[in-house]
Amino acid sequence: MGKLLIVGTVAFDAIETPFGKTDKILGGAATFIGLAASQFNLESAIVSVVGEDFPQEYLDLLTRKNIDLTGLQVIKGGKTFFWSGKYHNDLNSRDTLSTELNVLADFEPIVPENFKDADVVMLGNLHPSTQMSVINQMQERPKLIVLDTMNFWMDNALEELMEVIKHIDVITINDEEARQLTNEYSLVKAAEKIQQMGPKFVVIKKGEHGALLFHKSKVFFAPALPLKEVFDPTGAGDTFAGGFTGYLTESKNASFSNLKRAVIHGSNLASFCVEKFGTERMTDLNKKEVNNRLIQFRELTQFDIELQ
Amino acid sequence: MGKLLIVGTVAFDAIETPFGKTDKILGGAATFIGLAASQFNLESAIVSVVGEDFPQEYLDLLTRKNIDLTGLQVIKGGKTFFWSGKYHNDLNSRDTLSTELNVLADFEPIVPENFKDADVVMLGNLHPSTQMSVINQMQERPKLIVLDTMNFWMDNALEELMEVIKHIDVITINDEEARQLTNEYSLVKAAEKIQQMGPKFVVIKKGEHGALLFHKSKVFFAPALPLKEVFDPTGAGDTFAGGFTGYLTESKNASFSNLKRAVIHGSNLASFCVEKFGTERMTDLNKKEVNNRLIQFRELTQFDIELQ
Repeated sequence: MGKLLIVGTVAFDAIETPFGKTDKILGGAATFIGLAASQFNLESAIVSVVGEDFPQEYLDLLTRKNIDLTGLQVIKGGKTFFWSGKYHNDLNSRDTLSTELNVLADFEPIVPENFKDADVVMLGNLHPSTQMSVINQMQERPKLIVLDTMNFWMDNALEELMEVIKHIDVITINDEEARQLTNEYSLVKAAEKIQQMGPKFVVIKKGEHGALLFHKSKVFFAPALPLKEVFDPTGAGDTFAGGFTGYLTESKNASFSNLKRAVIHGSNLASFCVEKFGTERMTDLNKKEVNNRLIQFRELTQFDIELQ
Repeated sequence: MGKLLIVGTVAFDAIETPFGKTDKILGGAATFIGLAASQFNLESAIVSVVGEDFPQEYLDLLTRKNIDLTGLQVIKGGKTFFWSGKYHNDLNSRDTLSTELNVLADFEPIVPENFKDADVVMLGNLHPSTQMSVINQMQERPKLIVLDTMNFWMDNALEELMEVIKHIDVITINDEEARQLTNEYSLVKAAEKIQQMGPKFVVIKKGEHGALLFHKSKVFFAPALPLKEVFDPTGAGDTFAGGFTGYLTESKNASFSNLKRAVIHGSNLASFCVEKFGTERMTDLNKKEVNNRLIQFRELTQFDIELQ
């Protein structure tokens, strides 16, 4: 069975959308990645940090999903990373209301011994030096290293980001971030430039407008499933990353056609994530629902045209 | 051979993009629709109006593309409809600098006798009463009536628009306009409401983010081809409509799977249109280029996933 190592935040989120608001609920990049990846046949572990205030029920939930928590540090007397945000009416943009780093401020990741030979490493959004530290702790070069990042690190730790980018195989990044990183408006040109920085594959996430996969001169596009209601977009990008890396860990194949499938699996799982607040929808998701929606994805995109 | 009747503007455009600007060049909805449809095996005619200032070379161009111009009125002493606009840096939005209706102000469409039995009618963006007048002149109900419109008519002639919408089979509309027409943010809900107004099929155009086709509970998505350079978006929507209706006229089949193909053909041709100013790229486009890009569309979107 393939091993997936997940690095990222485990957090409290408080979310406000046009449809309602939550108190502190379970959130964090590694959480969403782990829950999505748990849909696949694999061994996974989370490397992260929480405070003493982190509820046992959340730990139990992750353990029930077969996620190894040996690498999840619980800091005595510490407080868990907290983010709160408010989405605008169209749900495409949001304001961050508060960010309390808490125990994340001094986080030094420790990769568990039995995951130092992981096949796939998913570096969720974190300081690029933390991401680099995880790569350095691996026994041997993993078959696939996937990195997610955001504009915050381009603004505040560009040099470290450029360094870690050299060592990865796939980057997942949103459209505006791809433009910021490369100074190119065209996503085709941006993806070319990013490939020159290191990663062989570039995934550009466009939210409700889908995701693009680039590799050399090849490009693949997966739409987001058109939904009647998008309830809460929080975690959609991380859920995508979890579906993407979960599938690749299970299938052990890093060909372009397999990465295409991984993009579809990621988009498919993300379409569930946004249907309820936080991790709620991902927690109770079953195989049959996932498969039925894959059929919808097929119907949404597949056509046959004879060329003359 | 199937007959396609095209109604819409034939115009002068003056365009400014970040890449350059033009003097008055050939433009207009019917022009772009006609040029795109000429890629298919069909008989087509344009119903429109121009002034005496309209150059013979433009008429010759349309005639060379086998477009019947019997229904193109040339008004002695009149001036051709003129639009000028300036695109913003991202090319996704533009300011209209001037609109001179000229001969369009008093336009009364006359459908040529030999096209009163057209199989497909493409009602390009015009006053809804003008669109309705064309429907009323048809000998018998065409197999397919497709209508394009815009927010201007929703603001200024909503009642007439709602009336003509009752009589059509397919509406093509952009995402913001679909939202305005229905007061629904979700495009899935908007498409449902529009189907209740009359059209069995709803095509929602999202510019660089592709196009959606809705019919009952079915939905199909075609991306726009990711391009290195988008030079001038003018006419892309009309080129889409021309490819869409051109293919449907040639193939004589209004099933959902065939409309899917039509959406792909429309998107494919639109991807050429934006590569040069105005009609320039569409004028010299050949079958081989079109077919090669259809192969790119297939590679962009097709995947195989086994369900477990």
